[in-house]
Amino acid sequence: MVADSEFDLIREFFSFSSSSGEGVVLGGGDDCALLEVSAGMELAVSMDTLLEGVHFPDSTDASDIGYKALAVGLSDLASMGAKPVWATLALTLPGIDRAWLRGFSEGFFSLAREQGVALVGGDTTRGPLTVITVQVHGLVPQGRALRRAGARCGDLIYVTGSLGDAALALYLMQQGTSVAGWLQRRLNRPAARVEQGAALRGLASACIDISDGVLADLGHILEASGAGARLELERIPLSEHYLACENALRERYQLALAGGDDYELCFTIPAEKKAQLERLFTRQGWPCSCIGVIESQPGLRCFLDDGSRYHPHSKGYDHFAQG
Amino acid sequence: MVADSEFDLIREFFSFSSSSGEGVVLGGGDDCALLEVSAGMELAVSMDTLLEGVHFPDSTDASDIGYKALAVGLSDLASMGAKPVWATLALTLPGIDRAWLRGFSEGFFSLAREQGVALVGGDTTRGPLTVITVQVHGLVPQGRALRRAGARCGDLIYVTGSLGDAALALYLMQQGTSVAGWLQRRLNRPAARVEQGAALRGLASACIDISDGVLADLGHILEASGAGARLELERIPLSEHYLACENALRERYQLALAGGDDYELCFTIPAEKKAQLERLFTRQGWPCSCIGVIESQPGLRCFLDDGSRYHPHSKGYDHFAQG
Repeated sequence: MVADSEFDLIREFFSFSSSSGEGVVLGGGDDCALLEVSAGMELAVSMDTLLEGVHFPDSTDASDIGYKALAVGLSDLASMGAKPVWATLALTLPGIDRAWLRGFSEGFFSLAREQGVALVGGDTTRGPLTVITVQVHGLVPQGRALRRAGARCGDLIYVTGSLGDAALALYLMQQGTSVAGWLQRRLNRPAARVEQGAALRGLASACIDISDGVLADLGHILEASGAGARLELERIPLSEHYLACENALRERYQLALAGGDDYELCFTIPAEKKAQLERLFTRQGWPCSCIGVIESQPGLRCFLDDGSRYHPHSKGYDHFAQG
Repeated sequence: MVADSEFDLIREFFSFSSSSGEGVVLGGGDDCALLEVSAGMELAVSMDTLLEGVHFPDSTDASDIGYKALAVGLSDLASMGAKPVWATLALTLPGIDRAWLRGFSEGFFSLAREQGVALVGGDTTRGPLTVITVQVHGLVPQGRALRRAGARCGDLIYVTGSLGDAALALYLMQQGTSVAGWLQRRLNRPAARVEQGAALRGLASACIDISDGVLADLGHILEASGAGARLELERIPLSEHYLACENALRERYQLALAGGDDYELCFTIPAEKKAQLERLFTRQGWPCSCIGVIESQPGLRCFLDDGSRYHPHSKGYDHFAQG
């Protein structure tokens, strides 16, 4: 046996705990993890891959990468209204860099602890670059998961938080501007809207998380629901940081509409539930904004406050799009 | 939108079926898959990554890669006695090669259909090389999963099938010898011993699948069980193909003991269940061999038929070992 063996590595940084964690019968240390799904619950699963140089700049702090690798999955669970319980992690690394591993696991586990997620398994391999695949597992009461399909003509369209911050941070970094503080966190430590998703069960008619820009992701709701939408562009929530950097942007709404990595929720509610929703979100201190309405005519139409039509440049981020 | 978009790609080759598949409430087309675990069952999950150039030679047929990417996970489920039900697939590709994708999905789905596994989700990303991560999900009656821990002094040690064939195929290919037929299939299309694993519930005291060589994997059983073992080297099952190629090998047992990719099961049973086990395996036409016995003294000792001690060169395959 060599010192830096695969097994030692896994043990040292990703100690799978078999004792802690809801429903964890057996964590690491065997060929499979064994898990128990409580009666009356459905299991929600989602898998995401992050690649060095594609999904995060090479300069990104290891702890931010660890945090985000889990956060993007939790955001998927949030959009279905599921409570996160378990994660698995496949990590491909060019070699063993203990400082990087320490940072990565610190970021990953800080979010895991905060959200009550147990890491129950995974794989570690050596490859020419860092590739991280995380599968998240959540529980949702039977038949109550939020879905993309379900938006009806007349439903109001909402988003949580503010849009375009992460895309702005990335844009500024690519321009050579240093980005720190709140704006940097919006890119590197997205807050999955897990509580909001759970609260929307029975209230929202459709829900999705915004990972590829609100136009693309609302587009998925419309496609799944067989509907169209009218967007009121000037109601798109923009942070004060976004507004402060506006001069740097060629076009005010582009990043807020079609930038990636927001990890806010976009959801629809029947119009008669507007007051109930806004009371709930206000009471909890959760920002949300009504940005449009579902229409029967297919397609997505954007308007400015003066009633003029606005035509976005591109619809969203696509990993396989050619340049 | 461009023609070769991520979404079209996923749709075309990996149509997640929401209708078919045990317990699949919702397959693809939303942020999460929704799955139902039947009452009285535990969920067994395992995640494995295969990398181009590391886990398969670049020349490997795409359909073999697709087959094996699923087979290695099914082998983990087999070793716990779990019935495979669902899989998720994270695929990182350097670009869109339709012939490769067609081959990969053909191989993957041929095994998935054979084993009744529904592909319920995944992710597709672009990266400099092919990286494949598969998570498999199986069901096992509560409290009845086979584990590594549980081997007791006096238990008999068995393996299914024959050992070293896959490692021999790889060795021959690396020597420039062309490998085809049965031996090639042993490397590229391992048969996960799912039925055997299920049949061993209540019979085996411990079980593992052999992916890194029987010495290393039996070693995990010993470590988890706090025991040692005596191995009768000449009872290690070697195929006629292995024996026919013996002259090519520097050392007869090395590949059978410490080569990778066998995907046979190694398990222990209380000695009084020997007749019951062998009747069952004979009736089913499943080859198995008793290769040793569990001892209280820690460590793994190998003996030849003449009673002399044999010392293996290396213990098994380690992805992070230095050369």
